[in-house]
Amino acid sequence: MPLHGATRPTGPVAYINLGQGGPGILGLLGYRPETGRPLKELTEVLLRGDSTLTRGERELIAAHVSRLNDSRFCYYAHGTQAALQLDGGWATVDAALGGVEAPSISPKIRSLLRIAAAVRTGGREVTPALIHDARAVDVTDLEIHDTVLIAAAFCMFNRYVDGLETWAPADRQDYLPAGRRIVDLGYLT
Amino acid sequence: MPLHGATRPTGPVAYINLGQGGPGILGLLGYRPETGRPLKELTEVLLRGDSTLTRGERELIAAHVSRLNDSRFCYYAHGTQAALQLDGGWATVDAALGGVEAPSISPKIRSLLRIAAAVRTGGREVTPALIHDARAVDVTDLEIHDTVLIAAAFCMFNRYVDGLETWAPADRQDYLPAGRRIVDLGYLT
Repeated sequence: MPLHGATRPTGPVAYINLGQGGPGILGLLGYRPETGRPLKELTEVLLRGDSTLTRGERELIAAHVSRLNDSRFCYYAHGTQAALQLDGGWATVDAALGGVEAPSISPKIRSLLRIAAAVRTGGREVTPALIHDARAVDVTDLEIHDTVLIAAAFCMFNRYVDGLETWAPADRQDYLPAGRRIVDLGYLT
Repeated sequence: MPLHGATRPTGPVAYINLGQGGPGILGLLGYRPETGRPLKELTEVLLRGDSTLTRGERELIAAHVSRLNDSRFCYYAHGTQAALQLDGGWATVDAALGGVEAPSISPKIRSLLRIAAAVRTGGREVTPALIHDARAVDVTDLEIHDTVLIAAAFCMFNRYVDGLETWAPADRQDYLPAGRRIVDLGYLT
C-alpha cells in the first residue's frame, strides 16, 4: 500500500530487515503474515464491525491514544480515517483530541475519550468515577468494553511500530490515499 | 475454564456485566467472541507457534511484561505457563524476572527480556544499544520481531483485563490446572 508523496528513507528503515515493506505497521504485517492476519482481523472488528459507535468515532479513539503515545504513523493514519468519516474532517479531530468542544463530538464520545486516555496510562487508571460519568451520558457496557479494548490495542500497535523503529511519512497529507482505500475496502485487504 | 480453588467474588466482578464469566481475560473472551477469536489466534501464534524460542521462553517474556505492569491475572497465568515449560519451574521464573542469573536462562533470553521491558515503558525506549547487545548473542530478526510484539501484545492484554476491573485469583497455585490444560491444548480451545 504505497503512501502518496511519501519519501522512503534511503538507509535502514527499521531495526530488522523488512525488505521493501511499507511504512509503519504495513511492513510488519507483510513481514510476519502469521501474526499479521489476527492483527488485521482485530482491527477490522473493533474499528469497522457492527457497533453503536460510528466508524469515525472509533477511529478517533484510536487516533487519540496514538497521539498521546506520540506514535506518528498510527496517529496520522487513524486521524486520517477519523477525519474522512466525521463531519468537519481534521478540524473536528484536532478539536476533539485537543480537548476543545466540537459540535460533532457528543458528550458520549468525550466520556469515552477520557476512558481511553486512562487506559493508555495504565489499566488501573480507569476509575469508577470515569465509568460513572460515562453511564450518566448513556454509554453501554459494550461501548465501554470496545473503548477499553481499542485503547489497549493501540497501546500494542504503537509499541509494535515504534519498538521496531519503522519509518513514517512526516506529512499527514501523505496518509490520505491509503486512508481513502481503507474507508472503501477495510483493513483485511 | 474454572480455576481450581479460586473463590469468585460475590459482588460485581468487573465494570461491565460479564455474567458468570471466568476471571481475567477468560470472561472477556466469552463476552465478545468477535474480538476474542483474533486475540486467541494472536496468542497461539506468538506463544506456541513455530519459533526458535521455546514456548517456555516466550511465556517468560509475557510474564515479565505483565509483572512489570503489575497485572496479576496475566502475570500468574503466563508465569505458570513458563514454570510448567522451563527447567526449574517457578524458581527459574522468579530468578529470571528478578534479574538473578539462572542456569536455564540463556544470555539470548536475558537480552530479549531487556528489550521486552523497554517496549513496556514505550516503543521508543528500544534503543540501538539494546538491539546491538541482542545481536551480539546471536538473536535473529524474527526473535527481535516476536519479542517486541509479545511485549506490545501484553501491554494490550494487561490494560484490557485491568481497565475493565476483572477479578483475579490471589494465589498462583490457583492457576495451575488451567495452565496444564493450555500446555496440552493451547489457547484456541
